[in-house]
Amino acid sequence: MPNDTTITTDLTPLYPILYQDAVRHALLEDFGGRGDITTDAVVSPDDRATARIIARSPGRIAGIDIAGFAFCCLDPRLQFEAKLQDGKDAAAGETLAIIKGAARPILSAERTALNFLAALSGIATATRDIAALIAAYPARVVCTRKTTPGLRILEKYAVRAGGGFNHRFGLDDALLIKDNHIVVAGGVSEAIQRARRRIGHMIKVEVEVDTLDQLELALKEEIDAVLLDNMPTSVLSEAVRLVNRRVITEASGGISAQTAEAVAATGVDLISIGWITHSAPALDLSLDFAYEFR
Amino acid sequence: MPNDTTITTDLTPLYPILYQDAVRHALLEDFGGRGDITTDAVVSPDDRATARIIARSPGRIAGIDIAGFAFCCLDPRLQFEAKLQDGKDAAAGETLAIIKGAARPILSAERTALNFLAALSGIATATRDIAALIAAYPARVVCTRKTTPGLRILEKYAVRAGGGFNHRFGLDDALLIKDNHIVVAGGVSEAIQRARRRIGHMIKVEVEVDTLDQLELALKEEIDAVLLDNMPTSVLSEAVRLVNRRVITEASGGISAQTAEAVAATGVDLISIGWITHSAPALDLSLDFAYEFR
Amino acid sequence: MPNDTTITTDLTPLYPILYQDAVRHALLEDFGGRGDITTDAVVSPDDRATARIIARSPGRIAGIDIAGFAFCCLDPRLQFEAKLQDGKDAAAGETLAIIKGAARPILSAERTALNFLAALSGIATATRDIAALIAAYPARVVCTRKTTPGLRILEKYAVRAGGGFNHRFGLDDALLIKDNHIVVAGGVSEAIQRARRRIGHMIKVEVEVDTLDQLELALKEEIDAVLLDNMPTSVLSEAVRLVNRRVITEASGGISAQTAEAVAATGVDLISIGWITHSAPALDLSLDFAYEFR
Amino acid sequence: MPNDTTITTDLTPLYPILYQDAVRHALLEDFGGRGDITTDAVVSPDDRATARIIARSPGRIAGIDIAGFAFCCLDPRLQFEAKLQDGKDAAAGETLAIIKGAARPILSAERTALNFLAALSGIATATRDIAALIAAYPARVVCTRKTTPGLRILEKYAVRAGGGFNHRFGLDDALLIKDNHIVVAGGVSEAIQRARRRIGHMIKVEVEVDTLDQLELALKEEIDAVLLDNMPTSVLSEAVRLVNRRVITEASGGISAQTAEAVAATGVDLISIGWITHSAPALDLSLDFAYEFR
Amino acid sequence: MPNDTTITTDLTPLYPILYQDAVRHALLEDFGGRGDITTDAVVSPDDRATARIIARSPGRIAGIDIAGFAFCCLDPRLQFEAKLQDGKDAAAGETLAIIKGAARPILSAERTALNFLAALSGIATATRDIAALIAAYPARVVCTRKTTPGLRILEKYAVRAGGGFNHRFGLDDALLIKDNHIVVAGGVSEAIQRARRRIGHMIKVEVEVDTLDQLELALKEEIDAVLLDNMPTSVLSEAVRLVNRRVITEASGGISAQTAEAVAATGVDLISIGWITHSAPALDLSLDFAYEFR
Amino acid sequence: MPNDTTITTDLTPLYPILYQDAVRHALLEDFGGRGDITTDAVVSPDDRATARIIARSPGRIAGIDIAGFAFCCLDPRLQFEAKLQDGKDAAAGETLAIIKGAARPILSAERTALNFLAALSGIATATRDIAALIAAYPARVVCTRKTTPGLRILEKYAVRAGGGFNHRFGLDDALLIKDNHIVVAGGVSEAIQRARRRIGHMIKVEVEVDTLDQLELALKEEIDAVLLDNMPTSVLSEAVRLVNRRVITEASGGISAQTAEAVAATGVDLISIGWITHSAPALDLSLDFAYEFR
Repeated sequence: MPNDTTITTDLTPLYPILYQDAVRHALLEDFGGRGDITTDAVVSPDDRATARIIARSPGRIAGIDIAGFAFCCLDPRLQFEAKLQDGKDAAAGETLAIIKGAARPILSAERTALNFLAALSGIATATRDIAALIAAYPARVVCTRKTTPGLRILEKYAVRAGGGFNHRFGLDDALLIKDNHIVVAGGVSEAIQRARRRIGHMIKVEVEVDTLDQLELALKEEIDAVLLDNMPTSVLSEAVRLVNRRVITEASGGISAQTAEAVAATGVDLISIGWITHSAPALDLSLDFAYEFR
Repeated sequence: MPNDTTITTDLTPLYPILYQDAVRHALLEDFGGRGDITTDAVVSPDDRATARIIARSPGRIAGIDIAGFAFCCLDPRLQFEAKLQDGKDAAAGETLAIIKGAARPILSAERTALNFLAALSGIATATRDIAALIAAYPARVVCTRKTTPGLRILEKYAVRAGGGFNHRFGLDDALLIKDNHIVVAGGVSEAIQRARRRIGHMIKVEVEVDTLDQLELALKEEIDAVLLDNMPTSVLSEAVRLVNRRVITEASGGISAQTAEAVAATGVDLISIGWITHSAPALDLSLDFAYEFR
Repeated sequence: MPNDTTITTDLTPLYPILYQDAVRHALLEDFGGRGDITTDAVVSPDDRATARIIARSPGRIAGIDIAGFAFCCLDPRLQFEAKLQDGKDAAAGETLAIIKGAARPILSAERTALNFLAALSGIATATRDIAALIAAYPARVVCTRKTTPGLRILEKYAVRAGGGFNHRFGLDDALLIKDNHIVVAGGVSEAIQRARRRIGHMIKVEVEVDTLDQLELALKEEIDAVLLDNMPTSVLSEAVRLVNRRVITEASGGISAQTAEAVAATGVDLISIGWITHSAPALDLSLDFAYEFR
Repeated sequence: MPNDTTITTDLTPLYPILYQDAVRHALLEDFGGRGDITTDAVVSPDDRATARIIARSPGRIAGIDIAGFAFCCLDPRLQFEAKLQDGKDAAAGETLAIIKGAARPILSAERTALNFLAALSGIATATRDIAALIAAYPARVVCTRKTTPGLRILEKYAVRAGGGFNHRFGLDDALLIKDNHIVVAGGVSEAIQRARRRIGHMIKVEVEVDTLDQLELALKEEIDAVLLDNMPTSVLSEAVRLVNRRVITEASGGISAQTAEAVAATGVDLISIGWITHSAPALDLSLDFAYEFR
Repeated sequence: MPNDTTITTDLTPLYPILYQDAVRHALLEDFGGRGDITTDAVVSPDDRATARIIARSPGRIAGIDIAGFAFCCLDPRLQFEAKLQDGKDAAAGETLAIIKGAARPILSAERTALNFLAALSGIATATRDIAALIAAYPARVVCTRKTTPGLRILEKYAVRAGGGFNHRFGLDDALLIKDNHIVVAGGVSEAIQRARRRIGHMIKVEVEVDTLDQLELALKEEIDAVLLDNMPTSVLSEAVRLVNRRVITEASGGISAQTAEAVAATGVDLISIGWITHSAPALDLSLDFAYEFR
Repeated sequence: MPNDTTITTDLTPLYPILYQDAVRHALLEDFGGRGDITTDAVVSPDDRATARIIARSPGRIAGIDIAGFAFCCLDPRLQFEAKLQDGKDAAAGETLAIIKGAARPILSAERTALNFLAALSGIATATRDIAALIAAYPARVVCTRKTTPGLRILEKYAVRAGGGFNHRFGLDDALLIKDNHIVVAGGVSEAIQRARRRIGHMIKVEVEVDTLDQLELALKEEIDAVLLDNMPTSVLSEAVRLVNRRVITEASGGISAQTAEAVAATGVDLISIGWITHSAPALDLSLDFAYEFR
């Protein structure tokens, strides 16, 4: 970004109000009508246990408090102790949290807790890995609106936990003129001018361009950022040169771990990658379980 | 499965009541407070368009009606025509659906519609690909409870669209004694016996075993299925031989595209793969947009 | 059931997450817009009381924790002490619970708390009474899907509290081919064969038959249970003999306290009775109230 | 009631907004995660049928539109024709409604539709039967707040369909001083006086009395009605004589079909019966199903 | 009111169940997807503060517990101490509450807490001011159904906090025959007679009249109250004389602070004013904030 | 705004998904348990009417489609014809909409429909009136986050209908450093620097300053806008001169119709006024009702 090289990545925890309903809904989804018939049949109400959430693979953690809430939602007397906070890296085999208390709620909440933690940590890990590849460059990794329906707040948070940054949260939090808008408006210049006539005073404007010609047109208008879509790195470099730090430059379109460094080397400010939210594999987690006493 | 070799894979469509709330919630999540400020600024209420949902990569389709509902939820006058039904394969570049009508709601619903369709088609495609690898064997691909919180019904449906089969929908629809239950009960036999004493008459019992010794113990009890966890294929083969079709055999634990065929070759009835729901990459989709007239 | 004579009837308590929303909704339903205008007018915020929930008639208790939650939902400082746990029998006049604290919330939550407890205990009592009539036989009492809309989980739980067992929780947790399905399929055999071609590996299949001829056809197919519908006891006995313990036998159709023992005497495994959920009279309860001091 | 002998019992239909959510919730409750696995397996999407809802026993109908909504909620193309409107009497074997269209949604919505219709018609029938017993007297049957949690609006409507009348809908729509309030206030007079000091101008006041002494105290205060609780008919008669039509008289407490006429003969204005909502048996209904063609 | 001159205005607090969902919804509305990005960026999790809610203008307080719940909803460890209870008057500059604890949740909940408290206190203040103008007369100030959609319970409560009284909570809690009903019925008498034939025993009947002729017709029927709509004070006086305390009299229609006393002087029992709920300005509040230490 | 003098005020209609739930909730709030007992008693199901929504006072309209939805929600067969679109001005006595159809749903939805339309039109009118006062100046009227809990989207829309502009929708859509943040950070410069280190690339930064000294400090940092809080117009003028169009200037703090023009004359870009959402009086509306025929 033109003049912004001191970004820190402190992670602000989510207030529980932002995930409690999602966790309750997921527990009920898993319980169906009968609840956990296996645990109810095999485990006594008096059985107690100590369980550990273990990372089977190394990864960046996101969602540890959400997992804790899932356990305590079933039984507020369970003791949930996080050993690693969101935004930290776990080694393979490392303990992420310890849960102590009645064995039944631990076993019955296990899958719901791990489903949240694994999915969010998977996003955080994918983000971290991309960010690491471009650490030598000023470019930031940003996510897109290609998120899981209903979980956008949590997934955007996981991107931050991975050291990435968030692009728009929704259709309403910045003006982004995309190819289809340009088609309707009849051209880059006209689209931007229409937008400028309607825009609120605290909204930034970004415009997607596919060619250097479009970029030149865009730069003649009042914009805050350009999204350089699906450009080869040679064209990207030329685009960055053309922009000359007057506006923020964002590279987008099929960027992967294979290509990220080359893209970053072009000097773009932002690299947006849908993959980190819509296709990141879940982190592999397990619940280690030690029976204590009845 | 012992005597069940004529499975068909007709796909029953989901009733809209099962996804309408999720779609509405996702649209509101994307709209935030202001709605689609870009489209509102750049596109006129009178602009009309014809849009096509295109598969950028080949894949198995799931969720086409859900995508259609997203568009029509914003504007019931939009015409949504599915060109490919769920459960069918799309070639790269193939048109999945055509939407005609006002340009604004088409553009504003685009991301929500594609997020559902891409995620579910990704699951269907991953399932189909695994199923294809083992087509020469009687084994079925089944999914697990490692699903996205809140979307289990839709993801289980996508597995069926991919030619896979569903294992348990929740903690309550079959009794599955896992390693941690055995720890609490003090052994395989005791765990099964406890379960048998409590079980309903229409519930089947499956038990997870890690070793052939555990398997032999389990087979002495009254069970319906065994989950053979993390066994090398040589041990799996021996397990299948031991079972001798008395109960259903399920292989589980880190099975991937690389190993699926070898696992199927052991003769197991079911291969359960969490990956197809928790880590399948989304199918790459785009919305092609042709401006029509104002 | 063929080989399952050691059923125990331990009752697993419901996690509060399964009833909290229903109780909150019921309290708001009773409060309307003004709340409890009588109590607010007549009772001072400083008045304190000790109240007792009393069984006016003898019966089996179900829902005592739900009642407790209703009181504490209005005022978490109320002390609610259950004197009799769910699944236990109350004598006429017996105290089920004691509530101490501010008089206002006790009086304002009374009706909601008792409505849950009376309805569920009514179901438990009806179930218990039927179960007692057939205690000399191996047959189990099971409930149906004829439950109060929105309260199925609680009513199925009440059946278990009464010593009964649960049949299907919903359309999705076992395959039950009923008369109308047979009409569509064109016959018992064809219906079962269609089902077999589509069924998941952990799902059991039951088929409803009205005649011994249908039964013989059904037994030629692969099924897990037969529902013997509306058969006179002489025919039921013959059906049980025909089945010869190869599958589970369930008698259904208008079975009442008058006929239950004769049905059980035929040797069927299960007796399903819709009446215990859809028509059981509520247990007669009252709240005894002792004013303490202001 | 003192001067109100021309009551008509026209029944105002409920607006769908009052039951749509409850029906949707009940359908989802029955569908679980997989939906209707039997119908999906056995019935083709092309199968069509004509179904009839039949009253197996005679009774008063309530909820026919709610049943219709349940079917159309799954498939808006189903044709639902009510043959008997709410508030009308069905003979045994009479057709209440005819549903035509795709066989699958008819079978899948059947249980939900019938559960509402049977429960509400059961309440209407019980109310009608009590009302018939006292038809020769001016007394009205009224219901109480002893309703099923979450369904009060529907159950109160069913009482009206049965020719009964509604007492309070909730704690907030009239002031009813009960025994426990009197305990706290220290006496009937004090309780009424406290209430009078707080009451809104459009609220009526009723007071529960157990004895003629209490009644005489109550009549010295400004009240609109007295609830004569658990009085033998001889005492009731004396109470009615004492009141002398100055206020409305309501008999309450364990009144049944056996005792209703004797109670009515005492001359009371209202007879309140909790039984008609909390313990009325469901009306026995079935769905007759004729396969049409594929 | 004819015989009811000892009304007290004790204010019964609302049970939290009546506002918790509204507060949670408002917090989420303000948080959007990212939460409070300013506070997260500028304030450390370790910063602590003491904040005071201050009345910038004098007014009557309503909603102090609701404000407290907003803060504690974000962080249950915050200490919220109300210095002035609902129903009390604040001087300009007076401290209404003190909040101590982490600075972040205090700042992030501030706007939501103040929006509730300011709106409700505005209603209470407007009500109080009108009530004060007519304190010398027996007339009561009552509110209408012209409330903010979704907040009626809270706004009716605020009216009570202001020393006013509540008219109908909804369409269902008293029968109020308005001009349009009279149009349909064809006249005042016919409308009342129709109502009388249908009415429940605990429901009062009020009829709106525009002229003294209509009033005379109404008084020939059995009614409990008359709403004297838009009458000049001279006509109102005559109306009150005509009624002669036989029924409750309510003046309505454009009554303001300027005209209230003159209206009260006519001797009416009730003065209903929509303005106090639909147009009362919010009370001017601020959050004084003292940084403590990190 | 520095270079943005061609703002248009086209109003984009709200998609119904944004208000449908609020309207349904408001209708149920008004219906309570019994529904509209007056209309049900007095009006026949066969009565038909033509009703007109009339503006009693002149004003700017907002919410006409929301009102229409309220009527059609009760009865989809009602014909609702808007005569004036949102964003247009109504003269006193002008007809805003005509509703034809059954008299019952028209009367029963009236209050809910008018409550939305009156509140939102009141906001639009207040906004319009302020905007008219400053029409000779480039300054825009903007609203704040002081909105009614739960209705922010609708109220922000009403501001746009009034010709105003929206400031932040929530805590998350721009970074606004207020006085309390500066207190915590220890100074204007430090606060801005902290924010800059954390901020996303599409987020603008505004800082509140109370003095010219603070303004000078702020202008040394990288900011997009300054909020000039509670400054006398002479100081405001000096502030605008100091800023010299480098950043957007916003005047805030107690600005009213009396002071708006003087504030605008200082040359500020934005004038933010909480009053237009939290305290604007509702527009005075009535429903004219013509009985048609039965």
